[in-house]
Amino acid sequence: MSAGAEDWLDKLRWDAQGLVPAIAQEVGSNDVLMVAWMNREALAQTAARGEAVYWSRSRNRLWHKGEESGHVQKVREIRIDCDEDVVLLKVEQTGGIACHTGRHSCFFQLLVREGGEPHWQSVEPVLVDPERIYR
Amino acid sequence: MSAGAEDWLDKLRWDAQGLVPAIAQEVGSNDVLMVAWMNREALAQTAARGEAVYWSRSRNRLWHKGEESGHVQKVREIRIDCDEDVVLLKVEQTGGIACHTGRHSCFFQLLVREGGEPHWQSVEPVLVDPERIYR
Repeated sequence: MSAGAEDWLDKLRWDAQGLVPAIAQEVGSNDVLMVAWMNREALAQTAARGEAVYWSRSRNRLWHKGEESGHVQKVREIRIDCDEDVVLLKVEQTGGIACHTGRHSCFFQLLVREGGEPHWQSVEPVLVDPERIYR
Repeated sequence: MSAGAEDWLDKLRWDAQGLVPAIAQEVGSNDVLMVAWMNREALAQTAARGEAVYWSRSRNRLWHKGEESGHVQKVREIRIDCDEDVVLLKVEQTGGIACHTGRHSCFFQLLVREGGEPHWQSVEPVLVDPERIYR
């Protein structure tokens, strides 16, 4: 590999922990499916294999999305923003389920302000029982 | 105001700096326009005024998006993800321009891997000269 082969990874402004947020957006619907974190190696692997690889902060290791559930994300585009500190992936979501709760998207909690105190309400259906996702 | 009036803000898992990332997604197109940061006060003000208010990490103050450019974001929905540490706003983008570079979206840099080394390429047009946005 030539010296310049990973220059594109230097373009990102990694934070003090070496991470940036990464959004997975579904091709076609444009739904925002989830946000996770990437370090340099996660982004390099994502580009190399064409499937989303994140850095799991809770497990402190690389996380090939779908490695347990089978719900891998096929990556069609990789973008960064004007500040070069956020990644946007355009993905095809295998199984149509991105969330570990069995929902299409992780963003299923909506702020509702009608009828009393503001509160968060789940507004998206559980498509598959999570116990069936993680066997 | 009753004691419970701000309980909904306690639902979020603010990071060590008291912040969470916030995505602005355009109603209709579902385009991801930008990502910024919010602290508790920014989210409270966003809900109260119905326009996006972020925490500017560079200026270290609340930032009412569009306060200089006029490109305010009218907030139609506020959502959080399953981990309760990312906010998703569904917004109407005044002027159709979210980015300080004069583009519709901040995510205009695409990773291109054809023809040599991988590199980032700007793939979205500048709609308005930035010098005309910030008078």
